[in-house]
Amino acid sequence: METKFIKWLRQRLPEDSRSVLGLGDDAAVLRLVGEDCVVTVDMLTDGVDFVVADVEPQRIGHKSLAVNLSDLAAMAARPVAAVVALALPREEGRELAVGLYEGLLPLAKRYGVAVVGGDTNTWDGPLVVSVTAFGRPTSRGVLTRGGARAGDRLLVTGTLGGSILGRHLDIEPRVDQALQLMSEYELHAGIDLSDGLSTDLGHLTGESRCGAVIYADRVPVSDAACTLAESSDDGHTPLQHALDDGEDFELLLAVPPEEAERIIRSQPLDVHISEIGQCVDVEGMWLVDDGERRPLEPGGYEH
Amino acid sequence: METKFIKWLRQRLPEDSRSVLGLGDDAAVLRLVGEDCVVTVDMLTDGVDFVVADVEPQRIGHKSLAVNLSDLAAMAARPVAAVVALALPREEGRELAVGLYEGLLPLAKRYGVAVVGGDTNTWDGPLVVSVTAFGRPTSRGVLTRGGARAGDRLLVTGTLGGSILGRHLDIEPRVDQALQLMSEYELHAGIDLSDGLSTDLGHLTGESRCGAVIYADRVPVSDAACTLAESSDDGHTPLQHALDDGEDFELLLAVPPEEAERIIRSQPLDVHISEIGQCVDVEGMWLVDDGERRPLEPGGYEH
Repeated sequence: METKFIKWLRQRLPEDSRSVLGLGDDAAVLRLVGEDCVVTVDMLTDGVDFVVADVEPQRIGHKSLAVNLSDLAAMAARPVAAVVALALPREEGRELAVGLYEGLLPLAKRYGVAVVGGDTNTWDGPLVVSVTAFGRPTSRGVLTRGGARAGDRLLVTGTLGGSILGRHLDIEPRVDQALQLMSEYELHAGIDLSDGLSTDLGHLTGESRCGAVIYADRVPVSDAACTLAESSDDGHTPLQHALDDGEDFELLLAVPPEEAERIIRSQPLDVHISEIGQCVDVEGMWLVDDGERRPLEPGGYEH
Repeated sequence: METKFIKWLRQRLPEDSRSVLGLGDDAAVLRLVGEDCVVTVDMLTDGVDFVVADVEPQRIGHKSLAVNLSDLAAMAARPVAAVVALALPREEGRELAVGLYEGLLPLAKRYGVAVVGGDTNTWDGPLVVSVTAFGRPTSRGVLTRGGARAGDRLLVTGTLGGSILGRHLDIEPRVDQALQLMSEYELHAGIDLSDGLSTDLGHLTGESRCGAVIYADRVPVSDAACTLAESSDDGHTPLQHALDDGEDFELLLAVPPEEAERIIRSQPLDVHISEIGQCVDVEGMWLVDDGERRPLEPGGYEH
């Protein structure tokens, strides 16, 4: 429901010159006199983003910050600080909170994030964690969803699909990779894959007012996607998992052709980066599979 | 439980030169090169901070931002922006979200707050609202809890107690009043009364490493405190409600004597400001009532 709701909300928000980039992207850019501060917030809830009964709180804490850092990475912003708000169940709330921070703080340290505040509450409901993170753009500015042009190549880091088997909790946000690419190459647009490739590609092309063609045989399918396809009998292929599963938290980038070629040839990152398709003039998304071109429907997770 | 938990957390947070003021105050001050950004987060939950079944969502939305603006007021910071994270119950979640923003946005407009982002989720639990707000300090810097000295007079805006009868939802944050006092007078310390006078006074004196004496006959008892004392048979007097009830969201300030005298004499605000006591050398809190001096125990709300 978020997409529809954001549309509604956008119409109700007054124009504000300080809001350089408002709703509709991975994070907000806030113009403080002479300084841009990138802000993002993600709220995670028990039963949706994790299951408290099944998972160590440390992994929940890690994920709570990691998803925010992934948003900053999608903007090519350098993480600076975060604040953490918790609604804790009454039973063993303190142990839970301690565990959460034990998972969150090492990640914060690794990415130079100062945890500068928070709000810790107890209530009769299940666990809710809301992290707001702040970043600084590089000297090249921020990377938005809206800059892709027809002809741009679509690149994706890592492998996709099946994160539900565990990786969605232990994700490593692509912060360093985004900063490295931003400093060394010309990038047109970027998004992190939180809702699934087919859905997030729709967000990117929608904001950029272009379309996209994806080549099925170039999509980097993860081992987890194969495992999931084998173990479940819903008929979903590994490719479908790679296209539609949420929470990969990899980067999807739109890059001019000659830059894309340089990136793919030199493979400058510590993770593989694949060219999976390109942007086209006509709005819409298509999948080329076995020589056949058919519409690609957003099949990912809608919040 | 928050106090204990913050203590635990404080010991675990590495020193960070960018965190000018970290946990333990109403808001965090974040040093961006050459610019300070004041950040505060408050998470409100159904059954604790409001009851969805009994209250229009507009009032919940208003309160969610107002409590954050009250924190900024306590720091004498000028509100700039906010991000809003929601966990909505599945049933009528959209209507609820719309109502929340209908209450929140007019308040944001009134105080020049740009709502620059958010995260809207649906889940099987009750409503949770988490707002992170940003402010800018005045040219005189921020007002902290830790600057009070022995001899300072303790001033409080408005009247206290009984906010549970309705005012806790419709609070008007003391933003303009704080900015006005900060620009025209020398203030030593400040806090907003969210947990109750006796508890928040403890926070202020604790951070300032001083004590305080309060004069019972000078505490501005609200009409609601009297109504509550009359209607309930728990034996609490109106004064007890004024001392211990949470969510007044008035300002408590520590001010040098000569400045306090100027403020009290000229009454520069659109709300009455009362002198209720003073800071003393010895740590601890006392209430002088009917000529008798007895210890004042923190009786307010602990999150």
